[in-house]
Amino acid sequence: MALLSVLTPVLALLLCLVIGFVFLRSRETSRTPGKDKEASKLDFRPWVDQDLQDDTEITERDEDEWVDNDEEDDLPHVPYSPPRYCEETMLQRSKDFYTLMNQRRSVRFISPEPVPKEVIDNIILTAGTAPSGAHTEPWTFVVVSDPETKHQVRLIVEKEEEVNYRQRMGDKWVHDLAKFRTNWIKEYLDVAPYLILIFKQTYGILPNGKKETHYYNEISVSISCGILLASLQNAGLVTVTTTPLNCGPQLRILLKRPANEKLLMLLPVGYAAAAATVPDLKRKHLEDIMVHV
Amino acid sequence: MALLSVLTPVLALLLCLVIGFVFLRSRETSRTPGKDKEASKLDFRPWVDQDLQDDTEITERDEDEWVDNDEEDDLPHVPYSPPRYCEETMLQRSKDFYTLMNQRRSVRFISPEPVPKEVIDNIILTAGTAPSGAHTEPWTFVVVSDPETKHQVRLIVEKEEEVNYRQRMGDKWVHDLAKFRTNWIKEYLDVAPYLILIFKQTYGILPNGKKETHYYNEISVSISCGILLASLQNAGLVTVTTTPLNCGPQLRILLKRPANEKLLMLLPVGYAAAAATVPDLKRKHLEDIMVHV
Repeated sequence: MALLSVLTPVLALLLCLVIGFVFLRSRETSRTPGKDKEASKLDFRPWVDQDLQDDTEITERDEDEWVDNDEEDDLPHVPYSPPRYCEETMLQRSKDFYTLMNQRRSVRFISPEPVPKEVIDNIILTAGTAPSGAHTEPWTFVVVSDPETKHQVRLIVEKEEEVNYRQRMGDKWVHDLAKFRTNWIKEYLDVAPYLILIFKQTYGILPNGKKETHYYNEISVSISCGILLASLQNAGLVTVTTTPLNCGPQLRILLKRPANEKLLMLLPVGYAAAAATVPDLKRKHLEDIMVHV
Repeated sequence: MALLSVLTPVLALLLCLVIGFVFLRSRETSRTPGKDKEASKLDFRPWVDQDLQDDTEITERDEDEWVDNDEEDDLPHVPYSPPRYCEETMLQRSKDFYTLMNQRRSVRFISPEPVPKEVIDNIILTAGTAPSGAHTEPWTFVVVSDPETKHQVRLIVEKEEEVNYRQRMGDKWVHDLAKFRTNWIKEYLDVAPYLILIFKQTYGILPNGKKETHYYNEISVSISCGILLASLQNAGLVTVTTTPLNCGPQLRILLKRPANEKLLMLLPVGYAAAAATVPDLKRKHLEDIMVHV
């Protein structure tokens, strides 16, 4: 009993230590899981902007806030007869479209010459024909032609890109990009008559303020961007597909976009400059990209 | 002192309880972080297939295994003069392309009539003109025309889709899809003359066996898919963009694709069936998708 009495303060001390340890651990693990996940993601994907993540991944959802996408369950089905061509025409069309698209290149030298806004309107309309998860059409295309705003975009992008090149990207990635002769100076952001900033809506907001799920929003908006690139090429315009790292939140605020929208891509758009050059890259052959079973 | 002596067993018991609690907690948190992340992701994005994730997120990387994408740092730059049209022609072309693309719809009723393989070749070539992060071209298009393989694909997809509809997707999502009259019966997988399975290469494997980083591979392949959809529409063919949940690994093994490839999309391709119908959906207006600054 005397021994036990002697042990009591030791036990009390041990208890305090263990409780302290539990408290510290719980503080560590009670950081929002989103933040932890982001951090571990950054380790593996240094080139992925936090703002590029689907919001569905990183925000906590109040299930009650999410409503069904559309009340029109009983949408009528209508007959559909798309254009159809004879085999010869089909073959010729597929060849011609390939020839046109195969001339597309990412161009960093853009002419300041003006481009009719109506052409841009048609291109955005065309991008808006893309399919999307549950037909949510989760895209916003911000077209910037105002010189002052373009310059603000440039300042934001160049500031972050310099940090990216100097610190975030790592030697390997900078080395991988060297052949494109890219760096953080983005003159085209001032020069191009239009900047198209493509935002994905990570969720929708209905007129009654409720949120709706945007399934596969990043894939949907990227598909839409592919159709936009085809449309630009078809019109004789050029761009370079950029994903400015860590600029999303600043650009979103500059352009007054709501919090459910995240910047996915930034495209400077115009005619190619007369002196435009591109790296002499080749594309893979058909047998390197297609497998027939 | 007597009081303390009496307290000793209580303190000892408390100590045991606290230590037991710490032990249980540490077992819970010592599950691999990757698994935790996947699990928490599943909570927030029930429709995202584990196999759809960038491998760069979920695999551990041995940095030494990763090499630079291309040794040709000093790739020559060459002059580039893309097609250019007068304003009137440009406007007309952009309008015509919009009209064509605006007729595109996701079609679930596909005719069994044969389609020349050369058209499919041109369409895949066209998809391969998409831009990609650091020009890694991280795509593989598996074109399935063999009836037995198409049927195997159907069996895999229907089996998983039935589970998806019954268990994984949740009432809300099933409800959201009701207007499309979709369910787990996918007759078109047998009927369509071609299935195009689009795989993203989450990393590349060089001839020497080393791995190369595929930056933004999911976005790149999705852009490529957008150009593919434009090309199908241009040729007078139809498809429906599907992302079969949880079928990726089984389909990858069926089609003998390597572990660095993950299924992103499955497109059944052919002419529209004579009796094809589509839900009477509308697209958003220009002012609902475009903001001009």
